[in-house]
Amino acid sequence: MEFLKSINSKDALEIIKNFPVSPGTENIHIDEALGRIIAQDIVSEEDIPPFSRSLVDGYAVRAADTYGAKETSPAFLFVDGHVKMGKKADIVVSEGHSVGVSTGAMIPEGADGVVMVEYIRTAGDSIEVTKGVYSGENICFKGEDIKKGDVVIKKGSRLSPFHLGVLSSIGITNFSVYRRPRAALISSGDEIVPADSTPSIGEIRDINRYTVANILKENGVDVSFIGIARDIKEDIADKILKAKGSDIILISGGSSKGERDYMVEAIEALGGKIMIHGINIKPGKPVIFGSLWDRCVFGLPGHPVSCIMVVVRFVLPLVSRLKGEGEGKEKLPVTGILTTNIPSIYGVEEYVRVSIERIDRTIYVTPNFSKTSVISSLAESDGYVVIPEEQEGLEKGEVVEVHPFY
Amino acid sequence: MEFLKSINSKDALEIIKNFPVSPGTENIHIDEALGRIIAQDIVSEEDIPPFSRSLVDGYAVRAADTYGAKETSPAFLFVDGHVKMGKKADIVVSEGHSVGVSTGAMIPEGADGVVMVEYIRTAGDSIEVTKGVYSGENICFKGEDIKKGDVVIKKGSRLSPFHLGVLSSIGITNFSVYRRPRAALISSGDEIVPADSTPSIGEIRDINRYTVANILKENGVDVSFIGIARDIKEDIADKILKAKGSDIILISGGSSKGERDYMVEAIEALGGKIMIHGINIKPGKPVIFGSLWDRCVFGLPGHPVSCIMVVVRFVLPLVSRLKGEGEGKEKLPVTGILTTNIPSIYGVEEYVRVSIERIDRTIYVTPNFSKTSVISSLAESDGYVVIPEEQEGLEKGEVVEVHPFY
Repeated sequence: MEFLKSINSKDALEIIKNFPVSPGTENIHIDEALGRIIAQDIVSEEDIPPFSRSLVDGYAVRAADTYGAKETSPAFLFVDGHVKMGKKADIVVSEGHSVGVSTGAMIPEGADGVVMVEYIRTAGDSIEVTKGVYSGENICFKGEDIKKGDVVIKKGSRLSPFHLGVLSSIGITNFSVYRRPRAALISSGDEIVPADSTPSIGEIRDINRYTVANILKENGVDVSFIGIARDIKEDIADKILKAKGSDIILISGGSSKGERDYMVEAIEALGGKIMIHGINIKPGKPVIFGSLWDRCVFGLPGHPVSCIMVVVRFVLPLVSRLKGEGEGKEKLPVTGILTTNIPSIYGVEEYVRVSIERIDRTIYVTPNFSKTSVISSLAESDGYVVIPEEQEGLEKGEVVEVHPFY
Repeated sequence: MEFLKSINSKDALEIIKNFPVSPGTENIHIDEALGRIIAQDIVSEEDIPPFSRSLVDGYAVRAADTYGAKETSPAFLFVDGHVKMGKKADIVVSEGHSVGVSTGAMIPEGADGVVMVEYIRTAGDSIEVTKGVYSGENICFKGEDIKKGDVVIKKGSRLSPFHLGVLSSIGITNFSVYRRPRAALISSGDEIVPADSTPSIGEIRDINRYTVANILKENGVDVSFIGIARDIKEDIADKILKAKGSDIILISGGSSKGERDYMVEAIEALGGKIMIHGINIKPGKPVIFGSLWDRCVFGLPGHPVSCIMVVVRFVLPLVSRLKGEGEGKEKLPVTGILTTNIPSIYGVEEYVRVSIERIDRTIYVTPNFSKTSVISSLAESDGYVVIPEEQEGLEKGEVVEVHPFY
């Protein structure tokens, strides 16, 4: 086993960022597409709307016929009929004439404005317009939403409900998305027992299985749980072998030196190559990252908080690439004022769990100093603050950026 | 049909907030629980950790034995063995003695600190401690994470990966959650055709079906689509009848007066009661809200942007209550500087779509003034700004709060 020195966070991310991935694709129907990453640029073959439409209930007019019209001196126009909803408007609006339209109806030829029904007085076959319109008023013009030839959604976008609205508007209901990455998860440690069992003294229940699996799940990954490996190289290797074929293998546990060594030995025995062994971060230092069977493998620390922070900071960026969304889009940080000093160690990038409180328009940020084995502390935190390695602590009153967990 | 005047946003939300709901519950397994709303307080029947554990690899000691120890004058201690991972520590640490522990191992009786292996020099059967520890150092004490009797998760919480970690730590893998609400969705309008068909001139494809269904879906609602209703009272009533049994019925379309009237008539003909008919908001004014068969029904505007804003502002708060999470927890708004003036109308609450740009630590907010029928404008927006009804516009340079869409 070659000994690797722990490296700083930036270098670790660089190694992870350069790990080659080639996400596959599949065709799906729009009904199943929420949150998927689109694998093609979507180009519209149509103008949307496909015809100019009224935005209001009223009368389509030549705007010039209504200029200067007001309550006390209305414009008089003949009414030549009404456009039927969902039908072609086959009447032409000529000077001094108008045609009734409902919201969404096609604007008849000749008209360039719609007077809202609120500004109309009907008088037999004609109307009085009590407020003039400008040319274009209350009309959504053909192609105003989407123009034929427009790239409406870029390859690599995560499909939101709005994107699905855009796709439906142009009639694209089947398209190519990236396949969901498949992760295999292994817990390790002689002291770890399944969550539904009663631990004997000295044992504790598996936590990381649930936190890691569900963070990945909510980030669009299919997760299979392989099992709990005992702290011997052979059992770890055996479990890793069962994970073969996954896009990413994650082994949690191994915060003790013995466990870490077994993990490294098992990966190398299977033909893998360790690329990172320790990152200068807190919590989470004992991270392992390597390649195995041309896929990637992570060794995650055993302490639940450390494990989660490593997943959030180092695994999720790789997940974004496996998903086909490139670097992905980070949530905007929330800016707030620190309510107390936070000490930190020079040369180590630290992640501090914090709670956010909002008083009027000011956001206050309070750190949570619980130990890294304390899972309950995370359920109560809103996010975390990063203290860069070249900095020694943060001071009360400083403006800090909080990375929200949700 | 009784004529109802449009009301302001606050009054509308009050009516919606007071609509009686009684969400049902079901038992589920932890594997299926991500994002579900828990229907019981979770009380721990155990201390977590169930025994005091070492946070590091090292030697469990009586801290007092190491006071003042340093590189040049180390403390000498006998080693009485090692605690096996996952086993009871059955050695007692007496004065002048120590016991080896790995990370996560049980702390033996008598010890009250752990010296990290980095500060240990081994010398036969004994060790030299080169840095003293304080009492409690590097130990996670029994019950330090969770105390027996603690309420660890409150009824009505949305289960995050962290909550699932907490549940697994105390061995609770089956529990009661609220049933997912069931929504039925109807599109209406003579001009609306399904997304996978080719519209004739005068027709457009159904957009709201996809935007509304997917906003609800990502908020934990099961959605069934009933169909597209023609603009006659009978067809709308027929479709609503098919939606019977849903917790919430949503009918999109009906931005024209005729359509709105048919919708109201259909609801009333089925025995429903209209409680809101028009809200003074922009976009989205023609909202209908009522009760039918002791459940609720919404009439949503037809313009896609208006429809979405009504769902976000008025439907989702009700969805939160149907889900059992009470008022729900709103995302923290992002604060930024407005890059341009925004006009607005006194007496109307306005929702302005905006894009956010971050330059260094400053966030700039730029409005998107597209028409409310323009769905592509939403796919490019990051969130929206609310202009209260008593205000006339916002000015360039003002600090505004953006409600993020994602």
